[in-house]
Amino acid sequence: MNFVPSGVITLTTDFGHKGPFVATMKGMMLGRYPGARIIDLTHEILVHWPAEAGFWLERSFRYFPKGTAHVAVVDPGVGTERDIIAFELEGHIFMAPDNGLLGGLANLPGRGPVHRVDFDRLAQLGLSTPSATFHGRDVFAPLIAEIAAGRRQVAELGPTKSDLVPSWVEEASAEGARVRGVVITIDNFGNLISNIPRSLVERFKRPVVEVSGHHLPFLRTYGDVKPGDYLTLINSFEVLEIARAEQSAAEALGAGRGAPVWVNEA
Amino acid sequence: MNFVPSGVITLTTDFGHKGPFVATMKGMMLGRYPGARIIDLTHEILVHWPAEAGFWLERSFRYFPKGTAHVAVVDPGVGTERDIIAFELEGHIFMAPDNGLLGGLANLPGRGPVHRVDFDRLAQLGLSTPSATFHGRDVFAPLIAEIAAGRRQVAELGPTKSDLVPSWVEEASAEGARVRGVVITIDNFGNLISNIPRSLVERFKRPVVEVSGHHLPFLRTYGDVKPGDYLTLINSFEVLEIARAEQSAAEALGAGRGAPVWVNEA
Amino acid sequence: MNFVPSGVITLTTDFGHKGPFVATMKGMMLGRYPGARIIDLTHEILVHWPAEAGFWLERSFRYFPKGTAHVAVVDPGVGTERDIIAFELEGHIFMAPDNGLLGGLANLPGRGPVHRVDFDRLAQLGLSTPSATFHGRDVFAPLIAEIAAGRRQVAELGPTKSDLVPSWVEEASAEGARVRGVVITIDNFGNLISNIPRSLVERFKRPVVEVSGHHLPFLRTYGDVKPGDYLTLINSFEVLEIARAEQSAAEALGAGRGAPVWVNEA
Repeated sequence: MNFVPSGVITLTTDFGHKGPFVATMKGMMLGRYPGARIIDLTHEILVHWPAEAGFWLERSFRYFPKGTAHVAVVDPGVGTERDIIAFELEGHIFMAPDNGLLGGLANLPGRGPVHRVDFDRLAQLGLSTPSATFHGRDVFAPLIAEIAAGRRQVAELGPTKSDLVPSWVEEASAEGARVRGVVITIDNFGNLISNIPRSLVERFKRPVVEVSGHHLPFLRTYGDVKPGDYLTLINSFEVLEIARAEQSAAEALGAGRGAPVWVNEA
Repeated sequence: MNFVPSGVITLTTDFGHKGPFVATMKGMMLGRYPGARIIDLTHEILVHWPAEAGFWLERSFRYFPKGTAHVAVVDPGVGTERDIIAFELEGHIFMAPDNGLLGGLANLPGRGPVHRVDFDRLAQLGLSTPSATFHGRDVFAPLIAEIAAGRRQVAELGPTKSDLVPSWVEEASAEGARVRGVVITIDNFGNLISNIPRSLVERFKRPVVEVSGHHLPFLRTYGDVKPGDYLTLINSFEVLEIARAEQSAAEALGAGRGAPVWVNEA
Repeated sequence: MNFVPSGVITLTTDFGHKGPFVATMKGMMLGRYPGARIIDLTHEILVHWPAEAGFWLERSFRYFPKGTAHVAVVDPGVGTERDIIAFELEGHIFMAPDNGLLGGLANLPGRGPVHRVDFDRLAQLGLSTPSATFHGRDVFAPLIAEIAAGRRQVAELGPTKSDLVPSWVEEASAEGARVRGVVITIDNFGNLISNIPRSLVERFKRPVVEVSGHHLPFLRTYGDVKPGDYLTLINSFEVLEIARAEQSAAEALGAGRGAPVWVNEA
């Protein structure tokens, strides 16, 4: 394996900031690994939508040091029979419920074997019997802490698993002369962020982006238009973004997560 | 005393995330104790409602390492004559205004003596004259840092105090054949979380929960019903919770903090 | 220079908490400086309004240890020709876009020379080619990490710069017998926080504060009035604040950021 722990753990959830849900996960991590440096990726994933968490993890993990352990808990199926899975990729570890969250990452080349947590082995791994409704705190947090501390390996969690639940969102792809994707997330500025990667836009000479019935130009950066004008661009996470200079595109276009986005030749 | 510092401090406030209120508390802590590991429990306590802060502290502190110092600042009386108190419990330290916030925790068995901060002793404790309106930054933060660093003990803060302000919310209790409690908080999923502990629910053979005129079944976990169905369960913090599978119970029931909750026999 | 690194970095943005924008900045910092202790000042600066970020930095930096490196990214001009600047002041480092954000701080006495980041020197400073739209992650984060780690000095970033963009908001000042300022920010309690410092209020014997057509008394602390009453006071950051005891002044007065505030003699 290529995982050499950096001591960094990232945490992605749909828990928001009310209540001690994230905090008790961190408490459990620090109890097992006092030196952990825990970074909140975001806790404002759309409630019960693993696709957004997986998208952001896939687009952002390379900005963290190699040896980082990433845990994501968007887990509508908690307490049912869904698995918890983990694997290594490019020297990082990922752990999440097997509900499609890691569907995109698991498809990247170079990924290590996927293991699922064997719940019959939890006591052996030093865990207490988990609650029925908060595996984030009772299972994910202590296990990722052990891994981030370098005391446990993914392979010790349980057997390998091959048939993973696929992502809830299809990857962007060409359909005839067009490219189709969807809005995955919206940032604090109201920019709509799609899952269409740079490579699928670059095949067009003069790309025009269609969303909510609008046809929008493709440019380089926000400063290239007047305040209030729409533009689309490849953003800093290398995907197509629909923006409105100094205003909220999401509000003005009335488009949200899941809205289809098309790229056409002008 | 049983307090052996772990270096961890938790922070609970109603400050939200606007402005540098929480950050300046952390700055003051790091200035005195550079090695502190500071965890935000939550800063979204309902403004000016200490009951929610106390509830969450009581329900979550055991997920942090022994030796953790917990400070909670929900402090509508700042600048008036209210006291600041601190005590040790189960190897943890708690510090808060004496406004009922710690009412529940102070009643737990094994609690150490309650001391109040002697404002005439602040200079002696190494503090500057505090502002009238932000004791969180000027008093709580430096004092908890000294304690978390193991340089000061609770007993050095000032004299003991016996008549504490009681919690603003009565504990859940039996009334005849029924059990009565209240909604204390709402999580990011819209689940209503009450102060009724497991023990008071387990006395019923087939508990039925009454809230806002609805009578709801008692089950084990969210996955036990169809999306959109209501259920109640003992949640991961060992209290009764009213949920709507994959939807917001709070929104649909129109019930909020303080709403009465009854448990009856079916 | 007087900057002796404390290892603390503060982070101020208008990114909010959605998505991994802040997190990837932290990842970049930890990759270069694993020991960094990173504190979020606030990420809820009004979108695209550098004035609020500069105000809070100026009012709060002294609560952090000397040797702290403060980075603020409120950057509507990202990807255009705006500069990135940095300087030392009172043993702290400040880095931000040159868009008026640091206008107030740069005017304080004792400030060191202002340097701008030379984008032709980025490779030499060990940085990859930045994206067009997220300099926070690609430029600010790695540079501030190098500085906070003590490996780079402000002077190495690029040449000095003298004509800085001034703050978007005029400083509070006397106009005849009155003092004029503006509301800069609103806290979680709905208190309106102005840029009028204590010294400009203390020149009045019996100050009366005018905002949104209301004339409000000047008092010492929130507890000095009945719930629901308005008051104004010098707050814990030493500026004039308009409050409503146990309620939201912002909501009731309908006043927001930028609203004029006058102080008159009674």
